[in-house]
Amino acid sequence: MGQGAPMSPGTARAGTRRLRLDIGYDGTGFHGWAAQPGLRTVEGELARWIGRLARLGADAELTVAGRTDAGVHARGQVAHVDLPAGVAPEALAHRLRRVLPPDLVVHRIVGAPAGFDARFAALWRRYVYRLWDERSRPDPLMRGHVTAVGGVLDTAAMTGAGARLLGLRDFAAFCRRREGATTIRTLLECTAVRADDPCGTVELTVRADAFCHSMVRSLTGALVAVGTGRRPPEWIDEVAASTRRHGGVTVMPPGGLCLEEVGYPDEGALAERADRARAVRTLPPDDCCTTEG
Amino acid sequence: MGQGAPMSPGTARAGTRRLRLDIGYDGTGFHGWAAQPGLRTVEGELARWIGRLARLGADAELTVAGRTDAGVHARGQVAHVDLPAGVAPEALAHRLRRVLPPDLVVHRIVGAPAGFDARFAALWRRYVYRLWDERSRPDPLMRGHVTAVGGVLDTAAMTGAGARLLGLRDFAAFCRRREGATTIRTLLECTAVRADDPCGTVELTVRADAFCHSMVRSLTGALVAVGTGRRPPEWIDEVAASTRRHGGVTVMPPGGLCLEEVGYPDEGALAERADRARAVRTLPPDDCCTTEG
Repeated sequence: MGQGAPMSPGTARAGTRRLRLDIGYDGTGFHGWAAQPGLRTVEGELARWIGRLARLGADAELTVAGRTDAGVHARGQVAHVDLPAGVAPEALAHRLRRVLPPDLVVHRIVGAPAGFDARFAALWRRYVYRLWDERSRPDPLMRGHVTAVGGVLDTAAMTGAGARLLGLRDFAAFCRRREGATTIRTLLECTAVRADDPCGTVELTVRADAFCHSMVRSLTGALVAVGTGRRPPEWIDEVAASTRRHGGVTVMPPGGLCLEEVGYPDEGALAERADRARAVRTLPPDDCCTTEG
Repeated sequence: MGQGAPMSPGTARAGTRRLRLDIGYDGTGFHGWAAQPGLRTVEGELARWIGRLARLGADAELTVAGRTDAGVHARGQVAHVDLPAGVAPEALAHRLRRVLPPDLVVHRIVGAPAGFDARFAALWRRYVYRLWDERSRPDPLMRGHVTAVGGVLDTAAMTGAGARLLGLRDFAAFCRRREGATTIRTLLECTAVRADDPCGTVELTVRADAFCHSMVRSLTGALVAVGTGRRPPEWIDEVAASTRRHGGVTVMPPGGLCLEEVGYPDEGALAERADRARAVRTLPPDDCCTTEG
């Protein structure tokens, strides 16, 4: 959804049917999700091709769960689009597979259940930031989605520090501020583990109801400082108490970050969830509430 | 080792020490392992940097376990180099990490045990060819090292057909022929499994004492034909009986192939193994005996 785009309505307009798209992309070659004139973006690419294949006479209008920033990847991105009822989802998916570039895949397209809204019905977004430290064995084949750091990461210390941030709080210290936008979020999970693979990649999983801009990359920067011993775990409390972006926190590069999954409630609870989220977020203009970049 | 390069001696020359290098690379940007004038190759890159860092006044001379072809990747490549005894392996590894491009990593450098020869002491090479079929969920982040095929792969049928090729036999049907070079190899393992990951990637593992040119890519092509039902399993016997390259076998593209591991005997048996392998392969000029591409 582009900045300043109209709020997505709760249901498809008459004569149209809402479709759910499950999407993956290598963010390296994209200027992020949101369509921008003259720049190659994931939304721009999808909107153009869907518009053509569905013969809309214009780009399709997409609503997305997580507006990833330039260079951020996705394996489990979700979007919806309202298309003329005659457009068959399977045929559209099949045709998209033939035309989309290799760094962008639409895994499936299905008719969305009643009340489904990719953005507002989402319960949570799960991101993973992948890191190689000096105890890892970097694999050049993975280098596009893992970031190397100096020193050795203590994953238990990182998980311990992350636990201090769980729950509902103001994440202003970790966000790029936007006029009128709230930075209050509920952090549901923040755990670092060393993967049981030959590389020993450190994976930091961060799950929240929504994210403000650059939140996961800032959280990762703060936890890397703790994990390498440069900062004590208590330092996280001092950072979190800041009511504005904290200058001591490094914003990690986008290439290590991937949107892995978006969680939705069961079908029966979709509409209620979307109405609630929409109401909360309508108060001030809050374009960034599902953004991570 | 370049084509026509002299056979590597069994031990390091006086005043030098043999070092073992464990190497990984993304083959996409390389014209294969072997140094070639004017082309970017893995050997060329390593030989130049090691020559500089060890102040040899010339490129270093490397001997490799598996001479991968253009576009083929490696996670577990092994090479050796004989350097002046004063060169410390840890310091060299450290300096290489700083100068090598991101698609090439030297995981470690250690003093090689007596009798070690990266090429001739190797017991086996293990390659994996990765495939996405229509039951897979292609991940754009992995696209550089997985090849997509049409249809749905029956991994049990592929493994069954592969079992028909195990043991010592002439693999001429699967090899690009070279004058005077033997195509007799011992195939130790040939198994297809669908990975238990969200992508459902089909991984074909092929392990043999050595490989002739394009052997894994041809074997994969033949087994894909069986796996998709285009050919019956018995067809493999007909192919294998051919004394020259079989025209019905597709050579798969290099990007799906990766050299994962090279196996060596225990220290005590290294020299004996190398002497035996060297004797066997000295008869005709057989540059391709450890090659896969």
